[in-house]
Amino acid sequence: MKQQFEKKELKKKSENLSEWYTDVILKAELADYAPVKGMMVIRPYGYAIWEKVQEVMNAYMKSAGVQNAYFPLFIPHSLLEKEKEHVKGFSPELAIVTIGGGEKLKDPLVVRPTSETIMYEMYRKWIHSWRDLPLLINQWNNVVRWEKRTYLFLRTMEFLWHEAHTAHEDEEGAIDMCLKALQWYKTIYEEYYAIPTIIGVKSQSEKFAGAKQTYTVEMLMPDGKALQGATSHNLGQNFSVPFELKFQNREGKEAYVWQTSWAITTRSIGALVLTHGDDNGLILPPKIAPIQAIIVPILAKDVDRTGLQGYCQEMKEALTNSGVRVVVDENEAESVGRKFNKWEVKGVPLRLEVGQKELAARSVVVVRRDIGKKETVKREAMLVRIESLLKEIQEVRYVASKAFLDANTRPAASYEELKEIMNTNRGFIRAFWCEDAACETAIKEETKASTRCLPLDAKEEKGFCVRCGKPATHRWIFAQAY
Amino acid sequence: MKQQFEKKELKKKSENLSEWYTDVILKAELADYAPVKGMMVIRPYGYAIWEKVQEVMNAYMKSAGVQNAYFPLFIPHSLLEKEKEHVKGFSPELAIVTIGGGEKLKDPLVVRPTSETIMYEMYRKWIHSWRDLPLLINQWNNVVRWEKRTYLFLRTMEFLWHEAHTAHEDEEGAIDMCLKALQWYKTIYEEYYAIPTIIGVKSQSEKFAGAKQTYTVEMLMPDGKALQGATSHNLGQNFSVPFELKFQNREGKEAYVWQTSWAITTRSIGALVLTHGDDNGLILPPKIAPIQAIIVPILAKDVDRTGLQGYCQEMKEALTNSGVRVVVDENEAESVGRKFNKWEVKGVPLRLEVGQKELAARSVVVVRRDIGKKETVKREAMLVRIESLLKEIQEVRYVASKAFLDANTRPAASYEELKEIMNTNRGFIRAFWCEDAACETAIKEETKASTRCLPLDAKEEKGFCVRCGKPATHRWIFAQAY
Repeated sequence: MKQQFEKKELKKKSENLSEWYTDVILKAELADYAPVKGMMVIRPYGYAIWEKVQEVMNAYMKSAGVQNAYFPLFIPHSLLEKEKEHVKGFSPELAIVTIGGGEKLKDPLVVRPTSETIMYEMYRKWIHSWRDLPLLINQWNNVVRWEKRTYLFLRTMEFLWHEAHTAHEDEEGAIDMCLKALQWYKTIYEEYYAIPTIIGVKSQSEKFAGAKQTYTVEMLMPDGKALQGATSHNLGQNFSVPFELKFQNREGKEAYVWQTSWAITTRSIGALVLTHGDDNGLILPPKIAPIQAIIVPILAKDVDRTGLQGYCQEMKEALTNSGVRVVVDENEAESVGRKFNKWEVKGVPLRLEVGQKELAARSVVVVRRDIGKKETVKREAMLVRIESLLKEIQEVRYVASKAFLDANTRPAASYEELKEIMNTNRGFIRAFWCEDAACETAIKEETKASTRCLPLDAKEEKGFCVRCGKPATHRWIFAQAY
Repeated sequence: MKQQFEKKELKKKSENLSEWYTDVILKAELADYAPVKGMMVIRPYGYAIWEKVQEVMNAYMKSAGVQNAYFPLFIPHSLLEKEKEHVKGFSPELAIVTIGGGEKLKDPLVVRPTSETIMYEMYRKWIHSWRDLPLLINQWNNVVRWEKRTYLFLRTMEFLWHEAHTAHEDEEGAIDMCLKALQWYKTIYEEYYAIPTIIGVKSQSEKFAGAKQTYTVEMLMPDGKALQGATSHNLGQNFSVPFELKFQNREGKEAYVWQTSWAITTRSIGALVLTHGDDNGLILPPKIAPIQAIIVPILAKDVDRTGLQGYCQEMKEALTNSGVRVVVDENEAESVGRKFNKWEVKGVPLRLEVGQKELAARSVVVVRRDIGKKETVKREAMLVRIESLLKEIQEVRYVASKAFLDANTRPAASYEELKEIMNTNRGFIRAFWCEDAACETAIKEETKASTRCLPLDAKEEKGFCVRCGKPATHRWIFAQAY
């Protein structure tokens, strides 16, 4: 019989991050390659992580009055053309429907790469007065961007995301919204995914096609490359003017709205996998783990089966009632060793082993996935101990990622220093930049390091551009991007 | 200033159901026409109904071990062709992507009209042994079916649904799953939407393209036409053979799996609107209503504004804590009369009015949307009374719909009788049918009545086909379908 996976086959993270990444995603059953080139299937274990992100984001959005809705998958090309930078940015990546119902379409339809244009076409019908503002709408959906080189979760032709689009009376309201969304994303990454972030502003050449300013959440992956985790865009009036999103303001005058759009995608799961794992598989932070504890009954020959099964079920119920996501692995066809391996690969934070000895002593052996430490816990102390362990593992994961980030964020005083870092450790580089796009392009071409962001907490300083030596006022974050 | 709606403009349900239907959907802000012909936008108030359906269905599915996942939007045409009846059924309705990333595709991609083929292509990789069964996977997604004549919610080129696809060791397991899903759908319609249903089996010509047997939930709309509310399909081995979904069974032999697929769509919201409403707008059953109670402060000149606002907020908090979905309409720019109209059109079950008098007496005026009855309730009795009213309204809505269904389900002993009913009242007709497809087609062509289903509880009887007079064993349900 073919097995779902073999531990011995798992590639080693310590040897090749990229190979391990793909391998662990397939073997942990987070996702699989689809029968369409460049597309993927998100399997239940991976989708459960996304559902957790949805739950957290929905709660944040609800607290701010952002409501969910749904807009069409297809966009007439003419709508896309209304904002020039926007259509220019997305044109190379479009999937286009030219046949419908057996007939060639007069007006081909674009499969949405993002929904600004189709949503704002509706917003014009809905916004009349300042009393209709702020208009705060979000949708959870799928988008398509044609990609030549794809990578599970990180770059696929179709991905899932939420896209929120808001309209405000003034730019202050729009910027507030952008920053609020940015903080939510930062919290999801730091408190759930246990990945530290740097939040900041994108350069003009790295911003979203059509935005006035793009805010970003940047993370550092174990190979020293940066991953953009989520963005929120201050669209200014770039869309409201061509889409004629006018409203009567409090002074009774006609004005254009100020807009934002912001999103987090299933790409985030790629960051999670890259960050947390070892040669034995994933190590999921408890707050985002679909299964936080796996109970494995050790069904040896002389065991009291009924007693043991009852004991496991009773533990499961107690843990579930305490809010722990727990499963009992009762599959009798699989050996205990194979089960241990399987749940290790899947990165379940805690393994609870119970055999005849534990049944008799009313105890349980608790094994941590992250450090492999075993301890025997009395049944009556189990709930408290497991809660405390889950909390501890969550913290430890974050502290470890943060230490890595700090150790791999380096200042570069000269271009030689910057190049040296890029040739050795990579990571984040803090360096003065003159904010001239030509210099930015040259640095990227010469070193692979692009501007990731100007951190929101960056202070104004006096310095000189790391490449051209012209005066510069801020240190930007540079890195090679995924 | 343009207003969102004018009550006086609302079409009358009593005069023209179809015009009222479209009008009330637009004015209650459930949905709007999209900038793409045949597509719609589901606005937050409509989407909140769908989110409730998702919540209920997710709980049912979870209880049965059905897990959520996500499969690609695009399907290679070659995959669709693997099951002959399936591709024949869907070919006329396909939207096809022929251009991707600026290049003409060698292999055009179909935008999924349903996901059997792409999912089962994956299932082949995942199923090896009986231990992998049952495989129970669901996805919440969007599908596209090219339609010439569209109708908000009821027939649109794109709609939202969930589609669950399960694989079992034997047909018994598959049929059990079909019937379980059918019961869930029946419960959603009856207990949440307050719409009575008839559940049964589709005729061979009305079944799903590729199914062995289709189970259906049928409802009767106020105009005497039938609406198919949800279906579950016993796919037999129709897909598992061409897709080679083989497994090693308990006897160690190779066998093909038995499959099901089942779905409920946003079309259900169309049934909800058609069933519940009057000339003043929607009347939403409380269990599905996004807002169950709207608090309207009456801000007359001499009112203690701060006191009144505090009172409203305090009531809102108390109701929210009791699990009531409640909103305070604090918009000062809108007159009280206009507010009353707006919430009437939107079908909010209860309106809570509070002015100076109620503030002083610590009471609240409660008005029922369904029968317009007003009563003054003391604040301390409010929670109990509102809970009881919401329950009562839910029951009354169902009882009324059930009475309509019963009154409009008629036996037809002869073809003349059947034609007479179709020419006058329409509704459901119970009649013997020989189960010959030619007769079924002739009846539909001659009277517009198609077979809706053979009810699951139909008894075997001795009779003669209503049209051809040949012996028949069961009375089927006939009706004109939406």
